[in-house]
Amino acid sequence: MISPAIILVAPQLGENIGAAARVMGNFGLFDLRLVAPRDGWPNPAADTMSAGAFEAGVSVTVFDDVEAAVADCVQVLATTARPRGMIKPVLDLSGAIEVCGSVVGRAGVLFGAERTGLPNEAVALADAIVSFPVNPQFASLNLGQAVGVFSYGWAAAASAEAPRLQDDLLRDSPATRDELIGMLEHFEEELDRAGFFFPVVKRPVMQLNLRNAFTRAGWTSQEVRTFRGAIKALALGRGKARVVRED
Amino acid sequence: MISPAIILVAPQLGENIGAAARVMGNFGLFDLRLVAPRDGWPNPAADTMSAGAFEAGVSVTVFDDVEAAVADCVQVLATTARPRGMIKPVLDLSGAIEVCGSVVGRAGVLFGAERTGLPNEAVALADAIVSFPVNPQFASLNLGQAVGVFSYGWAAAASAEAPRLQDDLLRDSPATRDELIGMLEHFEEELDRAGFFFPVVKRPVMQLNLRNAFTRAGWTSQEVRTFRGAIKALALGRGKARVVRED
Repeated sequence: MISPAIILVAPQLGENIGAAARVMGNFGLFDLRLVAPRDGWPNPAADTMSAGAFEAGVSVTVFDDVEAAVADCVQVLATTARPRGMIKPVLDLSGAIEVCGSVVGRAGVLFGAERTGLPNEAVALADAIVSFPVNPQFASLNLGQAVGVFSYGWAAAASAEAPRLQDDLLRDSPATRDELIGMLEHFEEELDRAGFFFPVVKRPVMQLNLRNAFTRAGWTSQEVRTFRGAIKALALGRGKARVVRED
Repeated sequence: MISPAIILVAPQLGENIGAAARVMGNFGLFDLRLVAPRDGWPNPAADTMSAGAFEAGVSVTVFDDVEAAVADCVQVLATTARPRGMIKPVLDLSGAIEVCGSVVGRAGVLFGAERTGLPNEAVALADAIVSFPVNPQFASLNLGQAVGVFSYGWAAAASAEAPRLQDDLLRDSPATRDELIGMLEHFEEELDRAGFFFPVVKRPVMQLNLRNAFTRAGWTSQEVRTFRGAIKALALGRGKARVVRED
């Protein structure tokens, strides 16, 4: 599965190029292509915003025109929020990712310039349009953000193939039901002693309340020990802090 | 379906706050909260980067601490790439969106500062962790981009279909974060009084342990009231059952 190329058409601000490179690197995309960047290349502002993405493996290639930039692509997608009066399939993000992931060869995804977006001639080169569900009252996505959303989509699809283990849950062992019940009984015993379950007819519902809340938490063994320490402290604490005498 | 609040914890650069506001507006999220922004508020750099998002309806509220910022939330999610050694459910984007869309009341999503990310104490207040499938070799997402990915997820789900309500959550009203934090503080106060946090150097880890375990439980308001009664009973119970004299 060849990862798609991200192609910025006539980008203006180096900051946005750098932001695009950074988020590509974050989400495992490494082929960045620039078509006629306004301020040339390299661009110091892009470098600053990239936060090390180029050193981390994101490559940049500069092209004179869109045709050259997509020459090696077997599928081309154009991101645009605007209706174009062109008859092309319109994909959402997951549709676009599916196309990019299933194509044999490289896919290229076109992103237009700040303000003006993609020129019609660039959209005309695309097999399909990709559209994000933007708020029609405030539709203009920042260029770096648009690349970010697409890149996230790629990584999410790639990571879905290998479900990962929850490291945290593996590190600390979850409490056995035995430990948990022991904790609850300890708690209830002290509550009984403290006169908490009153009136007695309400004991079952109060007990259920507490057991429900505590059981949902998915306690670890360590947390059980900590809480049992807390119960003990509360039950005996007054005695520690002061001298308690029985009358 | 109430749209979630986006909560930036100690954000540094106005540019990132503005970028977050812009992409929120693009994807139909309007409740932006700032916890102790480094450069204060309002912030001209944020205004520039927002590209009119505030005029388009994104509101900003500033808070002194995370507790205050999440006080009205019934579910809190923490975005973090780092393993934390805390036992919380780890959600991917669609899992997080499902939670936010199905909760009865408001959800809040915490985003950490540039470089440092979320402090452990903020993560401890969350019901679950949200994690994006970043490249482990280049994992640090720009703050605005992280907000962008989440906001996109919200818009994609909203445009797909209206999520269903969770029946069991409808039956009992979930505790607000305010109620939950009140309960934890009450508990910790009594534990302090009882001399539980000993030695003092271990206080933070013991407190985190308890807060994590309790926060995972998804308490209802009724359960919070019951547990607060239990704390009171344990703290005072000995005094009720016997006569306690101070020496």
